[in-house]
Amino acid sequence: MLMHNTDISKIVDAVATEMKTNKAIINQSTISLALAKRIAKRIEDKASEMGVRAVVSICSAGARPVLTECMDDSYIASFDVAFNKAFTSVSLKMSTIKLKNLSQPHGPLYGIQQTNDGKIVIFGGGEPLVLSGKIIGGLGVSGGSEEQDTVLAAFGASCVEEEAKKCL
Amino acid sequence: MLMHNTDISKIVDAVATEMKTNKAIINQSTISLALAKRIAKRIEDKASEMGVRAVVSICSAGARPVLTECMDDSYIASFDVAFNKAFTSVSLKMSTIKLKNLSQPHGPLYGIQQTNDGKIVIFGGGEPLVLSGKIIGGLGVSGGSEEQDTVLAAFGASCVEEEAKKCL
Amino acid sequence: MLMHNTDISKIVDAVATEMKTNKAIINQSTISLALAKRIAKRIEDKASEMGVRAVVSICSAGARPVLTECMDDSYIASFDVAFNKAFTSVSLKMSTIKLKNLSQPHGPLYGIQQTNDGKIVIFGGGEPLVLSGKIIGGLGVSGGSEEQDTVLAAFGASCVEEEAKKCL
Amino acid sequence: MLMHNTDISKIVDAVATEMKTNKAIINQSTISLALAKRIAKRIEDKASEMGVRAVVSICSAGARPVLTECMDDSYIASFDVAFNKAFTSVSLKMSTIKLKNLSQPHGPLYGIQQTNDGKIVIFGGGEPLVLSGKIIGGLGVSGGSEEQDTVLAAFGASCVEEEAKKCL
Repeated sequence: MLMHNTDISKIVDAVATEMKTNKAIINQSTISLALAKRIAKRIEDKASEMGVRAVVSICSAGARPVLTECMDDSYIASFDVAFNKAFTSVSLKMSTIKLKNLSQPHGPLYGIQQTNDGKIVIFGGGEPLVLSGKIIGGLGVSGGSEEQDTVLAAFGASCVEEEAKKCL
Repeated sequence: MLMHNTDISKIVDAVATEMKTNKAIINQSTISLALAKRIAKRIEDKASEMGVRAVVSICSAGARPVLTECMDDSYIASFDVAFNKAFTSVSLKMSTIKLKNLSQPHGPLYGIQQTNDGKIVIFGGGEPLVLSGKIIGGLGVSGGSEEQDTVLAAFGASCVEEEAKKCL
Repeated sequence: MLMHNTDISKIVDAVATEMKTNKAIINQSTISLALAKRIAKRIEDKASEMGVRAVVSICSAGARPVLTECMDDSYIASFDVAFNKAFTSVSLKMSTIKLKNLSQPHGPLYGIQQTNDGKIVIFGGGEPLVLSGKIIGGLGVSGGSEEQDTVLAAFGASCVEEEAKKCL
Repeated sequence: MLMHNTDISKIVDAVATEMKTNKAIINQSTISLALAKRIAKRIEDKASEMGVRAVVSICSAGARPVLTECMDDSYIASFDVAFNKAFTSVSLKMSTIKLKNLSQPHGPLYGIQQTNDGKIVIFGGGEPLVLSGKIIGGLGVSGGSEEQDTVLAAFGASCVEEEAKKCL
């Protein structure tokens, strides 16, 4: 392929402009609805196997809701819990089971559960969703015991790379 | 088939018991996650055709969330709007486009938008979901113009009977 | 520069992988603090010239706060107003002065000011911030008359391209 | 300079009036936006050196927001945390790291974190801002570990006198 000088000049200009403005913006990648649906499905299938009726909530890299699905006969309270676990894990870039330890009495973040209008959850079931090393969203699962929710959220997070490849 | 007297007696007892307790409980039918997913998918496909990035929210007959899905790049504000349209339509058993007229200044329900902690939406895009003549949930759609949201919600509501038959 | 077959193969693989996963994520560009500071400074300088004590609030493409600055002796109430104008303009991808018309009684979005926990502002002073055709954030200005706030927000939005070039 | 009797009389009257009304009003000194910007800049520079992406929030002597700046890619949850640390430190005239000890289970202020609509933060990173022995505002920093936030807030508070001299 032959490139004319004008073409090359345009490309150089474009790159130069981008380099000039590269501290003006931050580039983020955030989870699509298609991928969120796939991950939710995987979690719901596993929850069924375990006999858990889960609420699955997935939010964007900006902690905005993308998907929430409540399995039949799940706890009414689980909606807020799952939703806020998703918020917590992406907005603190941390699993909620890790935050649990940090926020106990005398711990470094004790009291953080009161700082964000009740949106910080400090028990297991929330995980950041990571693709190619970057956080692309947050996941919250609620409906079983804390142990079950923790297992289900970790399972969901572990499916991201695999399911992302199926999003054509 | 031959029925013994004892069998017949048992059935009579069971029916009698049910008749005795039929004022003690209320039987509700509410939408399953499986049906909610099907309806959401139909709306999202139609929204794509129309060039609308919609948020679709479906709640139960008890006005509790069942499913919320945010199409890629939909308005951030649409999450609350769709969620609340679903709440409004099932909790008032009325389309939000009908409520619009009732709640204008000097209308019979003017002010209702302030009565429920900001959860009553008074413009189009919310519809009760009806199966076999009974309200089984509420639907909210937000993301296009009011007219587009109204069309999409009405379309979603119209799919209930058909999609319900596919939920085996 | 000489490229070995393995290098080319790696690049092809990387591109192929990216193409495969391109419906798994959404790429967003959001405003940096450096650019937000520059825009706020421009607005504050202009407000001073106009005799207005403004609150300037800038949020990300995901409607998360980036910067808020309250000029000396500005209205206490202006903090929430400016903050929510920024939220409104990015979460509805619309100027609040445009939303004003849509949300009057009998208008298509009348009532939207009640749907999002009091975060939707329906008078002038909020503008999406656009760089190279993409919304990278939201801007809210409060402190003067509605006309003054509208002018200041429009001015701020008009500075984005120019100030972005200075962010080296 | 020559002063006439009428001038002297006027001054005496003015002083007398002020003395008479000196229990009618309270004189407050509160941080300006110019000083707040300088302190925020110092903290952000230090945070960068430490590899922390901090949110810096500064409020007035009246616990009203003056400035909030979120460094690129800081935690979404840090906005509320930093904001509330600033509120806490000025509204209780106390460092939040000191409050931490007082508010642990069995401590004298245990439960204070529930008293102010979730605005009281009980871990390190909030400091009153003091100029010439008087509290002129509150500072909150969030984004690193509790130890890092505590260091950054203390550093910010220590810059007040020096930066105040530069605000001409």
